[in-house]
Amino acid sequence: MPDSGSLGPPTSLPEQPPAPPATTPDAPAATAPDRPVTSSAAHFLAGLHPPVTTPSSSPSPPSPSTPPAAWTPPSPPSPPSPSLPPASDVLVRNAPDLAAVPGTSDVSASDSVVRRLLGGPTGLGTTALSLARKQAAVPPDGAPAPSGPSAEGPVVPGLYHHPILEPDPVRVAEVSRRIKQWAEDEVQLYPQEWEGQFDGFSVGRYMVACHPDAPTVDHLMLATRLMVAENAVDDCYCEDHGGSPVGLGGRLLLAHTALDHLHTTAEYAPQWQESLGSDAPRRAYRSAMDHFVRAATPSQADRFRHDMARLHLGYLAEAAWAETGHVPEVWEYLAMRQFNNFRPCPTITDTVGGYELPADLHARPDMQRVIALAGNATTIVNDLYSYTKELNSPGRHLNLPVVIAEREHLSDRDAYLKAVEVHNELMHAFEAAAAQLAADCPVPAVLRFLRGVAAWVDGNHDWHRTNTYRYSLPDFW
Amino acid sequence: MPDSGSLGPPTSLPEQPPAPPATTPDAPAATAPDRPVTSSAAHFLAGLHPPVTTPSSSPSPPSPSTPPAAWTPPSPPSPPSPSLPPASDVLVRNAPDLAAVPGTSDVSASDSVVRRLLGGPTGLGTTALSLARKQAAVPPDGAPAPSGPSAEGPVVPGLYHHPILEPDPVRVAEVSRRIKQWAEDEVQLYPQEWEGQFDGFSVGRYMVACHPDAPTVDHLMLATRLMVAENAVDDCYCEDHGGSPVGLGGRLLLAHTALDHLHTTAEYAPQWQESLGSDAPRRAYRSAMDHFVRAATPSQADRFRHDMARLHLGYLAEAAWAETGHVPEVWEYLAMRQFNNFRPCPTITDTVGGYELPADLHARPDMQRVIALAGNATTIVNDLYSYTKELNSPGRHLNLPVVIAEREHLSDRDAYLKAVEVHNELMHAFEAAAAQLAADCPVPAVLRFLRGVAAWVDGNHDWHRTNTYRYSLPDFW
Repeated sequence: MPDSGSLGPPTSLPEQPPAPPATTPDAPAATAPDRPVTSSAAHFLAGLHPPVTTPSSSPSPPSPSTPPAAWTPPSPPSPPSPSLPPASDVLVRNAPDLAAVPGTSDVSASDSVVRRLLGGPTGLGTTALSLARKQAAVPPDGAPAPSGPSAEGPVVPGLYHHPILEPDPVRVAEVSRRIKQWAEDEVQLYPQEWEGQFDGFSVGRYMVACHPDAPTVDHLMLATRLMVAENAVDDCYCEDHGGSPVGLGGRLLLAHTALDHLHTTAEYAPQWQESLGSDAPRRAYRSAMDHFVRAATPSQADRFRHDMARLHLGYLAEAAWAETGHVPEVWEYLAMRQFNNFRPCPTITDTVGGYELPADLHARPDMQRVIALAGNATTIVNDLYSYTKELNSPGRHLNLPVVIAEREHLSDRDAYLKAVEVHNELMHAFEAAAAQLAADCPVPAVLRFLRGVAAWVDGNHDWHRTNTYRYSLPDFW
Repeated sequence: MPDSGSLGPPTSLPEQPPAPPATTPDAPAATAPDRPVTSSAAHFLAGLHPPVTTPSSSPSPPSPSTPPAAWTPPSPPSPPSPSLPPASDVLVRNAPDLAAVPGTSDVSASDSVVRRLLGGPTGLGTTALSLARKQAAVPPDGAPAPSGPSAEGPVVPGLYHHPILEPDPVRVAEVSRRIKQWAEDEVQLYPQEWEGQFDGFSVGRYMVACHPDAPTVDHLMLATRLMVAENAVDDCYCEDHGGSPVGLGGRLLLAHTALDHLHTTAEYAPQWQESLGSDAPRRAYRSAMDHFVRAATPSQADRFRHDMARLHLGYLAEAAWAETGHVPEVWEYLAMRQFNNFRPCPTITDTVGGYELPADLHARPDMQRVIALAGNATTIVNDLYSYTKELNSPGRHLNLPVVIAEREHLSDRDAYLKAVEVHNELMHAFEAAAAQLAADCPVPAVLRFLRGVAAWVDGNHDWHRTNTYRYSLPDFW
């Protein structure tokens, strides 16, 4: 890609043929269709994930409609697909090139990485051991090293997932260094006493894991700033750090104008401009968005704004229920969680990757479905890994196991296990829908975008698994 | 246009050249730039509005940066621009063709229409007379005839606006008939006792006035159903008919899934599907959206979903302030009102017109600015015309004059007059931005879309002016 080394609005992949007409009907299609996946789709699926796992590490068998992904024997090493940019990094020139680009079908995983990932027991019955090992790895003061390698954590038993290659430690260190500098010096994100929590977020490792095809650290920073800003808004407006459901609608809307600007009269515009610097969440949104908009096409920025409006709607539904003490039905909770969702993060995978999924291809109903399912699976992963943390927080915090337990009169354990099943079904539906779309619309930008979303899903799981500073599993097994 | 008579996803205008790269920076640009409008832009502006007014009917002089629009002498009759579809209507074949297509530069207004619009005194000092005349025209029982011609109402003195050609009465009658049938038979929108209010909404006249270039009544129905559905959600969830700010976030999100579908597991999807029929707002959203999605491209549907997410965020900010008794600063109110806004209505002008503004052109920052300014101007029009209605409603209802009076310590009258000035500045900024965009990107679909938005702005004003069933002006002059 000619522009993969520079940070600016990407153009479409040059080898991309004209977009086919998007004629797929936009009818309700709430569940995964059980249509067979074609052989080309199976080939695509097999390439979604790097071959770094064994059957025993993922106890949940794939659904009949889903071809084997993690179980595919490793492909022989081969050069990257010509439609993918090289994993070069013009800013961190001394960094080793990524040995492999997870999310492509032709990766050459180094043996040492495979060994590191596969080291130690996995599967049902081994979690407690693994958990104990991980908890022991947390530094005595409870705060992790700011950019050191994250501790390895246990997988939720029975969770359908794909292990990832270890994120490039040099990139992790550089992103960690830069994001802390941005947070402290550029947007004054937090008071000194929250530094440990910021480090414990391990956002550098998170974003490097989720965007293995980012051409440069500058591209990774686009995602990292937004992720930090989104968490700042959530923490300071909605949750732990001074947040409240009361009056949240006003605060979120004013913060949203940092992403989706106000157009008003000469008298009132300066007060709006000034407001964007008036608290940490807005400073973070404004700066992160300014950086993003400079690198994205207008359609990519519009897409991100839409996803953020969805996210804020989701926050407000959750807040309304918290305020009125309403425990939603399970389907209502899942609807809220499709909005209060990671979706804005995977959908910028193309901007972070230095290319563009054209707007008309992004808008296709089948692509929208893939994105929604991926977002839903990643978000239930969050519910599962943060279950213990939320139980220990003040007040009742809704998450899928809690809602299932209350609404379906199940024990905490059975409700948790059912939530794992819900996650697994969403993951299988995501993979089946992605494979079908890849077969129906085999345009290079679509294929790369789908791989990018899949890489985000896997990286997100890995971050939750390894972030033992924030998360621990319940004792259900 | 080959497909102007059929209702299905539109294609781009055939004569449209490839979209130029959208390189305009997306930097904050909160106020109208004072750059001079080019001569081609002035030509475009002059063609935005049909020549059916005189200076005395619009007392506010145009700003120096805005070339004369309403004051342009009538052009001689000429055939419609080749890039515009004929105003034919395959479904209402006996309806007279629209004598003119407001929003095009070459309209031949019939003398009778001009005389009807210009009949009676206008301008400062004549409003009370006009108001009295109009109030006398309301039927004795307070309910208007369902599809008869709306009474002529007074213009807010000093309001910068453009009169429109009288909406085609045959289309108005047909849309009025069909929308009432849809509301009563298809979505069971209201109980019998609300029929008068539904008729008084005069939504048929509204939508015919706002979409003069709709090729068929079927196209007009796309906009009309959505407008009714949006009002049903607002009335039943937020405002007069059982609405409340308490718990609104949950209700709105679940309604939003009628527009932006849930993708979930086989167990929970049926309950979500069933929920869409469980109350009038959701039945209306679901049906109106189903019709819209069948006629729109995926990108147009995505654009509409985004605008509806914005609208719902705006409702929730307003509700948060109502719940906490917070009176926002004027700029904060204007920010909320950029979201709680008519925007979803003008931005479907291309779908209703049977063509598509391509997604990348819609996403351009300068187009986004035009749309935001148009939406803001139309929304302040609503604040001005509904001022008396809202003063007489239970509780305190925020609108621009009320917020200005409280925050800037002005009398009710002075605050109202200042709100008129705010509106006028937004209107001038909209027209200047539209003219500049037309000059910078003279693509047929862009020009037609801009004319469509301008027509919507004018039609919206006319509906507020003439809807004396709902609105009356305060006695400030």
